Amino acid sequence: MQIPPAYAPLTPETLPRRLGGVPAVAERLGTDTTTWTVKEVGDGNLNLVFVVSSPRATLIVKQALPFLRVVGEGWPLPLNRSFFEYHALMRHAARDPGRVPEVHHFDEDQALVVMQYLSPHVILRKSIVAGVVHPNLARDMGQFLARSLFRGSNLSLPPAKAKADMALFAANAALADITENLVFSEPYFNAPLNRHTPGLAAAIARLVADRDLKVAAQEMKHAFVAKAETLVHGDLHSGSIMVTAEDTQVIDPEFAITGPFGFDIGMLFANFLLGFFAQSGLEPASGARDTYRDWLLSLIPDTWGTFAAEFSRLWHCERTGILYDRRLFEDQGDRLGSEQALDTVLHGIWQDCWGFAGVEMHRRIIGLAHVLEMESIEPPSARARAETRALAMGRHLAVMRATLLNPSRICDLARTIDREEHP
Amino acid sequence: MQIPPAYAPLTPETLPRRLGGVPAVAERLGTDTTTWTVKEVGDGNLNLVFVVSSPRATLIVKQALPFLRVVGEGWPLPLNRSFFEYHALMRHAARDPGRVPEVHHFDEDQALVVMQYLSPHVILRKSIVAGVVHPNLARDMGQFLARSLFRGSNLSLPPAKAKADMALFAANAALADITENLVFSEPYFNAPLNRHTPGLAAAIARLVADRDLKVAAQEMKHAFVAKAETLVHGDLHSGSIMVTAEDTQVIDPEFAITGPFGFDIGMLFANFLLGFFAQSGLEPASGARDTYRDWLLSLIPDTWGTFAAEFSRLWHCERTGILYDRRLFEDQGDRLGSEQALDTVLHGIWQDCWGFAGVEMHRRIIGLAHVLEMESIEPPSARARAETRALAMGRHLAVMRATLLNPSRICDLARTIDREEHP
Repeated sequence: MQIPPAYAPLTPETLPRRLGGVPAVAERLGTDTTTWTVKEVGDGNLNLVFVVSSPRATLIVKQALPFLRVVGEGWPLPLNRSFFEYHALMRHAARDPGRVPEVHHFDEDQALVVMQYLSPHVILRKSIVAGVVHPNLARDMGQFLARSLFRGSNLSLPPAKAKADMALFAANAALADITENLVFSEPYFNAPLNRHTPGLAAAIARLVADRDLKVAAQEMKHAFVAKAETLVHGDLHSGSIMVTAEDTQVIDPEFAITGPFGFDIGMLFANFLLGFFAQSGLEPASGARDTYRDWLLSLIPDTWGTFAAEFSRLWHCERTGILYDRRLFEDQGDRLGSEQALDTVLHGIWQDCWGFAGVEMHRRIIGLAHVLEMESIEPPSARARAETRALAMGRHLAVMRATLLNPSRICDLARTIDREEHP
Repeated sequence: MQIPPAYAPLTPETLPRRLGGVPAVAERLGTDTTTWTVKEVGDGNLNLVFVVSSPRATLIVKQALPFLRVVGEGWPLPLNRSFFEYHALMRHAARDPGRVPEVHHFDEDQALVVMQYLSPHVILRKSIVAGVVHPNLARDMGQFLARSLFRGSNLSLPPAKAKADMALFAANAALADITENLVFSEPYFNAPLNRHTPGLAAAIARLVADRDLKVAAQEMKHAFVAKAETLVHGDLHSGSIMVTAEDTQVIDPEFAITGPFGFDIGMLFANFLLGFFAQSGLEPASGARDTYRDWLLSLIPDTWGTFAAEFSRLWHCERTGILYDRRLFEDQGDRLGSEQALDTVLHGIWQDCWGFAGVEMHRRIIGLAHVLEMESIEPPSARARAETRALAMGRHLAVMRATLLNPSRICDLARTIDREEHP
C-alpha cells in the first residue's frame, strides 16, 4: 500500500496548526486558531472524524487511516478511499443538490476531506433505536436514489464520461473487496471474523446448509461485481444517513464504485427491515411500538414509490445517455415502447434490490459488522429472537427475489414473520 | 484525439527503413532490408496491414490509422486501439495458447503491432462463401471462448487484476462506441449510414416498428454496456477468424473491452447463421450445398457443447476468483451447490448469447457493415430472399432468448425459416 510521505494522522492538538493555513478552512473558522476547539468523534470503523469549532463556525474534518480502525493495524486499508469519497460527494451534490454535506476542502496526500458540520442531525440508526419518526425520510431517500443512480448511469451521462467514471472508481478495489467478502461470502461459511448472538447457532447452521440461499447470495455477488450500471454509494445503511425532524443527509460514500442500480436500494431496505425486526426487543412492552413498526415498514412502499416515480420522470425528461435511445422509441412515435423498456429496467432493479437486501440482513447478524438496532437489545435471548426473524426474512427475499410481487407483499411478509416463531 | 507527434503511417516504401532497426523484426527478417518485400493487404475497415517478407521469414505489420478507413478521414478513430489490441492479444495468448498470432513487437507511439504471419490461413468468411469445411473449427472456437472468457473473469482472476483490466479496457471507449451505435441502435431507426439490398424495405419497416424487438435490442445494449463480466474479443465474427484445413486462429481483438460472457459467443453464432442463410444464394443449384448447410448448422451445437464442457471443466478446476467461492460449496461438501451455481451462470450466458446473436444478424443486413457471404449473392433479389430469412431468425432469437430450449432447437428453427418464405 502506498502511503504518501507527507501523510500524518491529525490529532486534536495538531489540527489547528495544520489546517489553520488552509484558505477554505480559515475563511470559515477565522485565522485565530487559539479560539478553535477540536473534538475527535469518529465512531465508525474506518476513519478519524473531528468536529472543529470556532466562535464563527463549525466544520467536520474527516481523515482516513491506513488501516481498518475497528480491527486495528493488522488490516491495512488504502488511504485513497478518501479520494473516492471526495469524488462521490461531488457527484452526489451535483446529482441531488442539498442531500449530501458540502465539501469545503480536499487534500489527497493527507486523505482528508473538510466538510459541512451537520447540526442538529443525528445518525438514523440512533433514531430508530429511540423510536423517532422522520416524516420526510422516504421521500428524500427515494429522490436521492433515483437521482444519484439515474444521473450516474448510461441512461444519462455521455458514454465517455460514464466509462471514465467506471475506470476511476474501479480503483476503489480495496473497499469493494470488503463488501465482496463481508457481505456476500463470509456469512455463508465459518469465517474467522463472523460473530453472532448466543442462541443463533442452529439457525445459522441451517442458512449455511441452504443451497438455494448460497447460490442466490453468490448470484448477487456476481451482480455486485459485474453489473457496472451506475455510481453507487456502496454503503447506504442507516448509519450513513443523518436526520433531523425535517432534513435527510447522505454521508460517507467512501465505498463508492460502479455497481448495480439495485444495490443501494437493497442495502437501505435491509436496514429498514433490520430496524423493524429489532422493535420487539426495543419496545418497553409488547405492542408498545406498533405505530412505530408501521412507520418503519411504510418506508419501503414510500421510498420505492418515490424512487420509481422520480426514476420514471428522469427516464422521460433526462434520458440523454446511450441506453434505450429515444430515436428508437419516442422519436418514432412509440411512447409505449419507451414505457415497455422502462418497465423492464425497473423490474430488474426491483428484483436485484431484494437479492441485495436479503444478504445484507444476513451479514449484519452473522458477519463482522452488526447494527446498533439489534446490538441494543438485551437480554441476548430477546436479541436472538429478533435476529432469527430477520434471518428468515433475508432468506426469503434473496431466494424469492424473482417473484416478489410488490412493496405491500414485502410488508405483509415482514409482519407475518415478526408475529410468529420461525425456524 | 491525441496523435503522438512521432506518429506517421507506414508505406511499403518507408517500412523497411523504419522497422529495419527493430531487434524483434531484424532477428526474424535479417538486417539486409534490400531483400525485404512489402505488400499492403489491409482489406478491413480500420487499419494498414503489411505483409513483410525476406528470404528468411514473413511477418505481419499492422498499424492503426487515425480515422475509420472504410468511411474516411471524416470519422476519426483513436490510434490507441492498437494498444488495446496488443493487450488483448497478450491475454488471449496466455489464456488459450496457440490460438492467436504471436506478437513480436509493439510500438505504442506508432500504433503498430508486428506479429506472426499466418500461412496458409484464409479468412473464415471466404471459406464459407467457397463452401469449405473446417472440421476443427467448432472445437477450437468452443475452447477459445471458454478459456478466454473464463480466465478473463472474476471466476479466475485475482479481483484487483480483474478490476485493473476493467479500468484499462474501459478506455477503449471509442471502439465500444462503434459497437454501441452500429450494432445495437442504428439498425432500428433510419440512421444515415444504414444501407440494405433493394427489396428489403418492407421487412426493415416491420422490424423498426417491432416494439418487442426494439426493447430486446436495447436490453442487449444495456447488457453490453453494463455487464462487465470478462475480457471479450469484441468483434468475433467470421472475418476475425483465420483457418486452414486443420488450424484456427483468432485475430483482430482491437474492440476488446470488459463485457458480458455471452457477447463473443453470440456474435460468432450470428455469423455462422448468416453463412447458413447465405447458402441458398451461393449454391449453384437448389440443395447443392445441403451437406455444407448441415456442417454450418452443426457449428452451433458443437461450439456450444465444447464451450460448455470446457467452461465446466475450468469451473471445477480453476475457480480461483471471488465469484461462487468454493468455501461456500465444495469446501462444505456441497458439490451440487456448485453445480447449481454453474447451471445459473451457463443459463445466463446462453440467454445473453442469443440476444446478441439476434441483433448482430440484423445489423449485418440493415446497418453499415455487411458480410461477404450475403454480399457475394447475385442477383439482389436472391440476396434479399436470403437476408429476409436471416432477419426473421434474428428477430426470433433476440425476442425469444429467455425461452430458447437448446442448440438443436436453434438448428431446427434455422432450417424451418430457410425452407419457407417468411415475411
